[in-house]
Amino acid sequence: MQIVVIGGGAAGTTAALEIRKKMRDASITIIESQKYSEYSPCALPFVVGGHIAQFKDILIHSDSFYSTIAKIDLRLETTVSSIDREAKEVICDKERVAYDKLVLATGSYPFRPPIKGIDAIDTSERIFLLKSIDDAKRVDACASTAKRALIVGAGLVGMEMAVALWERGISVTVLEALPTAMPQMLDPDMGKIVIEHLRSLGIDIRLKIPVEEIADNGKEVKVTTEEGILTYDMCIIACGVRANMRLASSAGLSVGNGIIVSDTMVTSDPDIYACGDCCESVCAVTGKSILSQLGSTAVRQAKVVASQMAGGLKRFRPTFNTSITQLCNLHIASVGATLTQANINNMGALSSRFKGSTLPDYYPGGNDIFIKLIFTEDKKIIGGQIIGEQGVLDRINVLSTVMQLDGDLDFIYNMETAYTPPLSPTIDPLSWAAEMAIKKCEKHHKKR
Amino acid sequence: MQIVVIGGGAAGTTAALEIRKKMRDASITIIESQKYSEYSPCALPFVVGGHIAQFKDILIHSDSFYSTIAKIDLRLETTVSSIDREAKEVICDKERVAYDKLVLATGSYPFRPPIKGIDAIDTSERIFLLKSIDDAKRVDACASTAKRALIVGAGLVGMEMAVALWERGISVTVLEALPTAMPQMLDPDMGKIVIEHLRSLGIDIRLKIPVEEIADNGKEVKVTTEEGILTYDMCIIACGVRANMRLASSAGLSVGNGIIVSDTMVTSDPDIYACGDCCESVCAVTGKSILSQLGSTAVRQAKVVASQMAGGLKRFRPTFNTSITQLCNLHIASVGATLTQANINNMGALSSRFKGSTLPDYYPGGNDIFIKLIFTEDKKIIGGQIIGEQGVLDRINVLSTVMQLDGDLDFIYNMETAYTPPLSPTIDPLSWAAEMAIKKCEKHHKKR
Repeated sequence: MQIVVIGGGAAGTTAALEIRKKMRDASITIIESQKYSEYSPCALPFVVGGHIAQFKDILIHSDSFYSTIAKIDLRLETTVSSIDREAKEVICDKERVAYDKLVLATGSYPFRPPIKGIDAIDTSERIFLLKSIDDAKRVDACASTAKRALIVGAGLVGMEMAVALWERGISVTVLEALPTAMPQMLDPDMGKIVIEHLRSLGIDIRLKIPVEEIADNGKEVKVTTEEGILTYDMCIIACGVRANMRLASSAGLSVGNGIIVSDTMVTSDPDIYACGDCCESVCAVTGKSILSQLGSTAVRQAKVVASQMAGGLKRFRPTFNTSITQLCNLHIASVGATLTQANINNMGALSSRFKGSTLPDYYPGGNDIFIKLIFTEDKKIIGGQIIGEQGVLDRINVLSTVMQLDGDLDFIYNMETAYTPPLSPTIDPLSWAAEMAIKKCEKHHKKR
Repeated sequence: MQIVVIGGGAAGTTAALEIRKKMRDASITIIESQKYSEYSPCALPFVVGGHIAQFKDILIHSDSFYSTIAKIDLRLETTVSSIDREAKEVICDKERVAYDKLVLATGSYPFRPPIKGIDAIDTSERIFLLKSIDDAKRVDACASTAKRALIVGAGLVGMEMAVALWERGISVTVLEALPTAMPQMLDPDMGKIVIEHLRSLGIDIRLKIPVEEIADNGKEVKVTTEEGILTYDMCIIACGVRANMRLASSAGLSVGNGIIVSDTMVTSDPDIYACGDCCESVCAVTGKSILSQLGSTAVRQAKVVASQMAGGLKRFRPTFNTSITQLCNLHIASVGATLTQANINNMGALSSRFKGSTLPDYYPGGNDIFIKLIFTEDKKIIGGQIIGEQGVLDRINVLSTVMQLDGDLDFIYNMETAYTPPLSPTIDPLSWAAEMAIKKCEKHHKKR
């Protein structure tokens, strides 16, 4: 069996390696346009911020690993121009590669917002997108002399890069057109906690300020907003990503906002699978198609591809998009829908916010933890957001597990958690938060 | 309604306060034999170890809180001698207190092992049990001059006290009659990780050495074992606790190893409830009666008492005994049955052990995490043990949540967890551990 994987990122490489585990005799080829084998794109801000010593550290495997251990034909710097579905061939610059089964793991690309002069990105040494290791290397080089940096966009990557540059002693401004930060993960009230924390450290975050024009005059970046013209030594455009579905689309596969796949990760062509940032998922809460675009989703989808290809039964379930990041000392996590998203979907959502502590009051070193729960009047959990300086990963994973296993607020209120004074309180803050949410449900019922 | 609670520990106090929340007009009395209102007994080793500044810090509420805010009649240093169920009165030293509903939260007492001379405990200034705040104060005073300490018993409290005294610069020896440490939480292979860690720090832990005789000669503690006579400046007997069911038993209530209660926490007398260390629970994994004796269990049981008393529907479900402790830098957690316990119950258990890392390989600061899973051949989870220097609370709570919601190994293998390089790997170590366990199930099926 000839298996070809287009894309050597987390999705493609995991698919290839998992297929290798299950199908010892398959011929497996990965075609990747960049010159790097799999690396962690989520780690790029943390290399720029100095937490990881070198860019090469984030490469997951050595190049020899692919040929020698995994027996995978990894073709770097090779671009696929099209797919010939009838001939079952992938057409590259210089050759055609035949496949029995094809995996599209073409990832995503950064969105270029409609800002006048945005195409300066293609040539400027001061204005960057941040997607690839090469992008990050150019940012890193520029940051070594820059004193003032602008980030356009207060989404996840924008905020992570703002912190990374701030950690290098650069004066950082973030301009965001929307009235809130990180809206994919956080409602405005929770986003405010993050914004205020970063502002208190000296990062200048300005909301509701769309950038109208951007230009590189050879020395500085000039940015025009309604407030006038501002100048910076460098600028990163971080306005989200889009699914890279060009190949799929031109090959006539079904696409929406991403490549459309079934829960077996098969596209509209039964011999072509897709996984990772390039394809659509189903939101477990709203039931709607979404772009999950998390590294963890990519890897779990890739495992489904491998299972299916080897005749297995694994399916990709609707996703809760459990996610987390760290901005300076603040851990910020989210699962399911925000209240804003729930309202857009007319889910009749209620919400409550609880501030607890990660340790018993008497034990030194505890931290505040903010928990927002979003739920229906019958105590079904729609989503949650958690922010604090510790203990956030714990709680978001427990909350996500409860949602994945269809537990409700009553379950969280009554659930067992492990207790010892130096690590956790007798009753977990999640249970307190659920108690408050249940009271809100009861009040809501009384009102009606 | 006159409600009397016997015992002012976590169970009794939580019951009283939760009843107050639900029944504004009830008359609530707590009768407590000690001179302290509720404190955290689990915190005692951490006060002795110097992590918490003073014993008074671990008192949960001020004395005025009870009278002024909670409107609870708290009677300290008052001993109940018996219960007159016909008259519905509690008989104290000097008076009888009438009740409509009675809550027994009489807790547990330390077991006195059959060691010759053990009664020296009652008078010695060098040999101690560790149960109450007064016990801990005496230990604390003795530790201020002691150079060599002996702990008899390598259970949870014994190990916590060994570390606490070691942290004060005392040379510590632990003698354990059994061939393993902390057997209620850990199988021998996992216990070994803990023992080796503590030994590497200089704590001398000796297994399979029963203490035959103990004596205080006025200057030192002399301890006789098969290896000869050893001398120490102080000694703590930490051989577990027993349910304090004297009052219940002499009042004719049904008792086993603890006071027997239904899932509504009612005893064999419908007007008498019990909660906390004094009563039996059902083990969710084996279905057998056990003594849970965790602070978290006590609090959750107390909430059921309050709900039931107020006409609510809450019931206490069988427990998974989710538990955790910290010994020096090591976090040690357990849920469900150990393999040893599963085998005693003929559960046909399999097990697997996985060593993972809490962070991606490329991110500095990750730690090893050891995960042992116990499961049946059809992938049902029976228990788990987790040890590491970080990230243990996270995983034990997720594992416990999965067990509480009846998820299996397949669920853990496929589950969503939150990922960001500074906090967690793309695939959680729990999922890797589940993958290994599933393989073990598959091998087991092939063999048969």
